[in-house]
Amino acid sequence: MTLASLTPEIEPLLTAALPDDRFRRSEDRYLEEPRGRYRGQSGLVALPRSVEEVAVLVRICAEHRIGIIPYGGGTGLVGGQIAEAGPVPLILSLERMNAVRAVYPDENVAIVEAGVILADVQKAADDAGRLFPLSLAAEGTARIGGNLSTNAGGTGVLRYGNTRDLCLGLEAVLPDGSVLNGLSRLRKDNTGYDLRHLLIGAEGTLGIITAAALKLSPRPARSGTAMLVVESPAAALKLLTLGRDVLGEGISAFELMHRQGMEFLAETLPDIRRPWDVAPEWCVLVEVGLPAAQDPVEALEQLFVAGAEADLVSDGIIAQSQTQSDDFWAVREHIPEANRRIGSVSSHDISVPLGALAEFITMADARIHAIGDFRINCFGHVGDGNLHYNVFPVAGESRADHQDKRAQIKRTVHDLVQELGGSVSAEHGIGRLKVDDLERYGDPAKLAAMRAIKTALDPVGIMNPGAVLRG
Amino acid sequence: MTLASLTPEIEPLLTAALPDDRFRRSEDRYLEEPRGRYRGQSGLVALPRSVEEVAVLVRICAEHRIGIIPYGGGTGLVGGQIAEAGPVPLILSLERMNAVRAVYPDENVAIVEAGVILADVQKAADDAGRLFPLSLAAEGTARIGGNLSTNAGGTGVLRYGNTRDLCLGLEAVLPDGSVLNGLSRLRKDNTGYDLRHLLIGAEGTLGIITAAALKLSPRPARSGTAMLVVESPAAALKLLTLGRDVLGEGISAFELMHRQGMEFLAETLPDIRRPWDVAPEWCVLVEVGLPAAQDPVEALEQLFVAGAEADLVSDGIIAQSQTQSDDFWAVREHIPEANRRIGSVSSHDISVPLGALAEFITMADARIHAIGDFRINCFGHVGDGNLHYNVFPVAGESRADHQDKRAQIKRTVHDLVQELGGSVSAEHGIGRLKVDDLERYGDPAKLAAMRAIKTALDPVGIMNPGAVLRG
Repeated sequence: MTLASLTPEIEPLLTAALPDDRFRRSEDRYLEEPRGRYRGQSGLVALPRSVEEVAVLVRICAEHRIGIIPYGGGTGLVGGQIAEAGPVPLILSLERMNAVRAVYPDENVAIVEAGVILADVQKAADDAGRLFPLSLAAEGTARIGGNLSTNAGGTGVLRYGNTRDLCLGLEAVLPDGSVLNGLSRLRKDNTGYDLRHLLIGAEGTLGIITAAALKLSPRPARSGTAMLVVESPAAALKLLTLGRDVLGEGISAFELMHRQGMEFLAETLPDIRRPWDVAPEWCVLVEVGLPAAQDPVEALEQLFVAGAEADLVSDGIIAQSQTQSDDFWAVREHIPEANRRIGSVSSHDISVPLGALAEFITMADARIHAIGDFRINCFGHVGDGNLHYNVFPVAGESRADHQDKRAQIKRTVHDLVQELGGSVSAEHGIGRLKVDDLERYGDPAKLAAMRAIKTALDPVGIMNPGAVLRG
Repeated sequence: MTLASLTPEIEPLLTAALPDDRFRRSEDRYLEEPRGRYRGQSGLVALPRSVEEVAVLVRICAEHRIGIIPYGGGTGLVGGQIAEAGPVPLILSLERMNAVRAVYPDENVAIVEAGVILADVQKAADDAGRLFPLSLAAEGTARIGGNLSTNAGGTGVLRYGNTRDLCLGLEAVLPDGSVLNGLSRLRKDNTGYDLRHLLIGAEGTLGIITAAALKLSPRPARSGTAMLVVESPAAALKLLTLGRDVLGEGISAFELMHRQGMEFLAETLPDIRRPWDVAPEWCVLVEVGLPAAQDPVEALEQLFVAGAEADLVSDGIIAQSQTQSDDFWAVREHIPEANRRIGSVSSHDISVPLGALAEFITMADARIHAIGDFRINCFGHVGDGNLHYNVFPVAGESRADHQDKRAQIKRTVHDLVQELGGSVSAEHGIGRLKVDDLERYGDPAKLAAMRAIKTALDPVGIMNPGAVLRG
């Protein structure tokens, strides 16, 4: 069944159903995305204030075969929030469903609406003496509904899991306009199929998440940060295993960085304080979060000594103040911005089994250098096997000089990932950017089941048409 | 579409497809279940040795509309593994797919076939210096495929999550006979709908899990156990919150027990050593698992002191030896057997939000006592909000004396659970026992979506017909 375009003639079907202030024309911010790869079509934006209003809109769209783009903070990196072509859809923004409905500190639970900005979720938890551990660069703009729909990753996954692991229940509007009332605060509930996990990561193609019951954690009483120089990615992984033996679950973050990232920082953002004048080939940023009785500096010293004795760590700095800790994190968090300023030829958000990680880096470097002369900045959440493996022109050249090699580079990296049993989208999702990749690398039985589920729940195909699965 | 009975005339369609030793007649063990509530129909049992053989069987069954009961260890408590009525199905036992395919200690991953007994999974992890934290009373008989299909709970959920949280990927045969190759060892993979979580907890109604990639954990270097007397379930929960502030993620188990359970033990299993001659009204069994640098006895003393200072704990014993620790666990683990020997009128595997737990116990007791004179044994995984709330006759009466009140008691408990936002099946699943409950208490939009998914993936309805959803 083909979708209808949301033309000015059809718009009154929607605008008559809710008060006038629930609609606006699409401003630029709804049509752009962070990397500037996609540009949406102008049209109507709906700004419902309640799940009932979302349901009204969905029912009208289902009846009249109008596509819907569920819109969160707009920070997605794979075009899941932008429809460039095809029938004009309704942009349904959750930005006015931004209430923290309730926080239950004793239960470690918060009920929040989909439009709450991630940083505000963190703050609501913090105000209640709790931690909401999802943390990522876009947290000041991203909205939790989008984080859930894309099963966002970030720096806290190692200790606390992906976004799906932080969700106890969902309220959502399904493609037929029915409301799923699943805001469970339960830790255990084995009553039927887990629709929560089906909607999480479906990128808005199976329904619109309107609210969620989120799992909070005790706030570690004390935290500490270190930058440790390691010989190689393999040494970094061994250090992590060692660290878990020594410190238990206390390691909150373990981020690998390559010399290239530090050099890009020096080149493009010289005001960011770097820990070393001459960057080491590889280093890791380690953060620990511990109960009151444990001293984080001592714990990191223990880790450093154990790592040095095992020949895994050759140098390191343990932050002696919050300022120094913030400086270390600023390095990690500004690497994506430095990358943007340099301008990548091709970027890859991949994961491989931990045991294949070192091999991946070696082999990928060799295959990329066989294509041409490039700079490679490889960094990421090494404890999760998740690398941002990004390829840049050498100094003096620009990404435009290598336009013709982009497809080949991408294919080379993704083919290698596939060979090693990895994923071509570790944390960003499929969106519209990776629909081809999913078809190429996805398991055929999985794809067939996905299509069957999509057709069963959204027979008209109104929900985020063209994302994840070809429309 | 109605299913065909697997009559002797039809059996050769299956038996001709695989070697003779892949089949046997159904012995009693395939037709009975632990509580003796269901009795299956005699018939053919298939014992495939590989995923390809499972796929062959499923394709034949799909073509000829023959129902399939995927069979694990047979320890389920809700009749999910037993078809009492309707067309005779094929019993497809995974018992010969019992290989541990690989263990990756550095990745904290094990790949195991569905027929591996849970205790053998634990052992394989332990042999590699790792922990597989799923732990439940039936672990010597239950098979991991069944644990996954039912999303089993147990005593480790507090720290490590439900079975679904311990699974990275699945291999499965879908109802059309296609093979889902999803044995991912990845921690992060955002490429399409999460079929893993859809199959986990679907109780064999959407496909047959044949193997899984399981998440292992570092083995805590040292562990310790204590029995602490608490004033009330509310005090137990506050003590848990306090314990997490003091010990971080170190608390591995936190099991609430009522005086009644100890008294049943004394009555039916007097050889089990009890910690107190006169049982306290409420107590908790606490286990901590800590890194080498932390002393578990000291940690438990710290918890005891903090609990006493906060007026939450009035007495307690910290195990000074492994024997004493084993004795404490024996008490907890024999309560279900003591319950069986007494003979419950009605048993309930429920969960409520943590904040409603104390209220549930008070209100449920009042409502049950309004029905008649009963003994109530309430125990369970209090940190998960999961209680086994079981109702027994008073001394001198038997369960048979109260046959007429069973339905009313069950309804009373389940209605209260629903009022408080809880679940009528926290960890055992729906099976065939709770199909009515799911229809009564389940969210209508969720049920409609479940039916749509079931029809989309299993249009003929061959997979575990009558379980979870009415056939």
